Amino acid sequence: MHNQTITEVENKFTYLENGSVTSAKGFQATGIHCGIKKKNKDLALIYSKVPAEAAGVYTLNKAKAAPVTICENITKQNGKAKAIICNSGNANACTGFEGHLDALEVQKKCAEVLKINSNEVLISSTGVIGERLNVSAIINSLDTLKNNLNDEGGILAAEAIMTTDLVSKHFAVKVQLSNGEITIGGIAKGSGMIMPNMATMLGFVTTDAKIEKEVLQSALSESVNDSYNKISVDGETSTNDMVLMLANGMSNVEVEKDSNDYQIFTLALKDLSIKMAKSIVADGEGATKFVTINIKNAPTEKDANTIAKAIANSPLVKTALNGGDPNWGRIISAASSSGADILPEKVTLYFDDLAVFQPNYKINDVEKEAAKLLAEKNINITLDLDYGNASTTWWTCDYSEQYIKINAHYRT
Amino acid sequence: MHNQTITEVENKFTYLENGSVTSAKGFQATGIHCGIKKKNKDLALIYSKVPAEAAGVYTLNKAKAAPVTICENITKQNGKAKAIICNSGNANACTGFEGHLDALEVQKKCAEVLKINSNEVLISSTGVIGERLNVSAIINSLDTLKNNLNDEGGILAAEAIMTTDLVSKHFAVKVQLSNGEITIGGIAKGSGMIMPNMATMLGFVTTDAKIEKEVLQSALSESVNDSYNKISVDGETSTNDMVLMLANGMSNVEVEKDSNDYQIFTLALKDLSIKMAKSIVADGEGATKFVTINIKNAPTEKDANTIAKAIANSPLVKTALNGGDPNWGRIISAASSSGADILPEKVTLYFDDLAVFQPNYKINDVEKEAAKLLAEKNINITLDLDYGNASTTWWTCDYSEQYIKINAHYRT
Repeated sequence: MHNQTITEVENKFTYLENGSVTSAKGFQATGIHCGIKKKNKDLALIYSKVPAEAAGVYTLNKAKAAPVTICENITKQNGKAKAIICNSGNANACTGFEGHLDALEVQKKCAEVLKINSNEVLISSTGVIGERLNVSAIINSLDTLKNNLNDEGGILAAEAIMTTDLVSKHFAVKVQLSNGEITIGGIAKGSGMIMPNMATMLGFVTTDAKIEKEVLQSALSESVNDSYNKISVDGETSTNDMVLMLANGMSNVEVEKDSNDYQIFTLALKDLSIKMAKSIVADGEGATKFVTINIKNAPTEKDANTIAKAIANSPLVKTALNGGDPNWGRIISAASSSGADILPEKVTLYFDDLAVFQPNYKINDVEKEAAKLLAEKNINITLDLDYGNASTTWWTCDYSEQYIKINAHYRT
Repeated sequence: MHNQTITEVENKFTYLENGSVTSAKGFQATGIHCGIKKKNKDLALIYSKVPAEAAGVYTLNKAKAAPVTICENITKQNGKAKAIICNSGNANACTGFEGHLDALEVQKKCAEVLKINSNEVLISSTGVIGERLNVSAIINSLDTLKNNLNDEGGILAAEAIMTTDLVSKHFAVKVQLSNGEITIGGIAKGSGMIMPNMATMLGFVTTDAKIEKEVLQSALSESVNDSYNKISVDGETSTNDMVLMLANGMSNVEVEKDSNDYQIFTLALKDLSIKMAKSIVADGEGATKFVTINIKNAPTEKDANTIAKAIANSPLVKTALNGGDPNWGRIISAASSSGADILPEKVTLYFDDLAVFQPNYKINDVEKEAAKLLAEKNINITLDLDYGNASTTWWTCDYSEQYIKINAHYRT
């Protein structure tokens, strides 16, 4: 069994129209307005009809929000989960012991209404840091939330986890395995504070595949690494990031450890995760450009990622892209000051297929063609280091005046 | 001899009105328009009547501009220098072998006009990356440049090295040593791409102290570390950064290695450097706020600096400060995701003396008072980690919509 790539197996993937966390068998969901935000949906529930294996990947920020530590405890243990409840509008972060009790209270009351155990309820929050959660608004809405659960409610849930997001993010893919078909569906939110190692982004993924907990965890971790960990909106890592995944086995199609099916399953999950990650970048706060950064022929994968990250996070690159200015010197400068192993004199820099900068500092006279490419919404930057065999791809957006406006007055 | 602090000896410092690189004995300077920029001064010359010891600190960016490598070679050798020539409007960076020849040509022709050796001329550039330098514009102006040299020309030189700077930066301090008085004067430019480990900033410092080359280098390195390396405008490190220092001995006051005078000299140089660094931040591109970040009681100095840097570079903190929003959660989040050793539950966060966040996540109800403090132009943030004895102070500015405007269309 060789290591397959997404391209080799993507003929086994069928993306569904309006796919979401309710696309896989046995999952229901909904999203309602409970009163944390002034208007718009702010409370989501995802529910599995049968107990599901649960996996999670969490923020590396040391000021972890209360829901993060609660979910970490659950997914690290062996118990199964049946529900994910998530509010937007308040992060329940930096709220200390009281905040932790608030989260436990929501978890407990939600479990009571659903008639399941507390530790079968995963809990998540996103929004403003450092304000106490409006627990009663949530609790008073739990009956409504439960009554609204339905087999097509995944998109409502996607809407309810939005903060400054402009569009809801939801996808689902059917995957042909050797013993039948399974479905993986997900919803996500992003917008600001998006950056490697997760940042303020939430992703909830469901599947009806039958898969052991630790196999599920390993597929999820690998997928996050190649998707959410390669996007950046502003280089920030938030207190609340998490990707949770539930696998309820209702397809009766098994995904066994180390099998060919496991590889295909993981590639499908990765493909779905990349789609969700890219949709987060495209909807970055104030973003007007979607930028793909390819690093080729780097000495190591670590160098490739360090350079891609430095370019993706560079305010000078991001502002130049906003202005459509092919100021490629800033890209070379960001790459060369990243700390990664790079020989600037060997580098070739492309916008799409147009080489603007070649080895030995040869500058091509293609300013007009370059400006034309940068006027597009989708921008492809490729840096060929000619210094090894490692490569990576990252996705980012530009910095606009709108980004400043949104974040200067986020709470007002 | 105990390690003195700036506070203990600052009564020995007298800052001069309109001080600059021509305040110390035996230095002349000027700044003119030679035609690299469309208008405004773009060529500066600093000249010492007698050969001077030369020291330098340089960018860590691997794509070092041609002038950087030329100066590094000179200051690392034992020869003395008599002149610093610097153009603005073009960085002569990423210009390869031709760019290197261009820089050597400017250096050689400048030496001929001044009737000194080529390796007595230090050379520096700042401006757009990746465009060939207009060498003939410089060479054709060298006679004028020389003829304009004068004992009070330091401020003209400060004006000629500006790029997007709004104000020229120049300071000089007289220092009382045991055997007499010496003067240290400097000019600097900054604006964007300002960040630890130098970034696009230039600093040129002169002194009439009599000091050995390696002693001078050590005083300069120490000063840079506690000044320019603790400021950040946008987290970028440029291809052209340098701080050069010339000491011509014309005061006949000696500063000996390891002496008490050396300590005082270094503290004065550090004090001057901090003033220059702070003036760079205050004039950061689009800056509307001047922000001082104090980290106290950190486990190590490295942790303190990592946390200060993370806060100083956080787009979310910088945009909140721009809006005057006391969104302190973003400061805690930036500190906690910096990778430094921090226990969020022990932290106290102050705006001025107002504690907004206390140990065990206690949030003080001081939103109005905090908003009032953040409405000021000068903002003081102090984070007490209660987790050791190390401390640091950094300086930064906010991100405004103007920052985006300036950088989206820098070259147009």
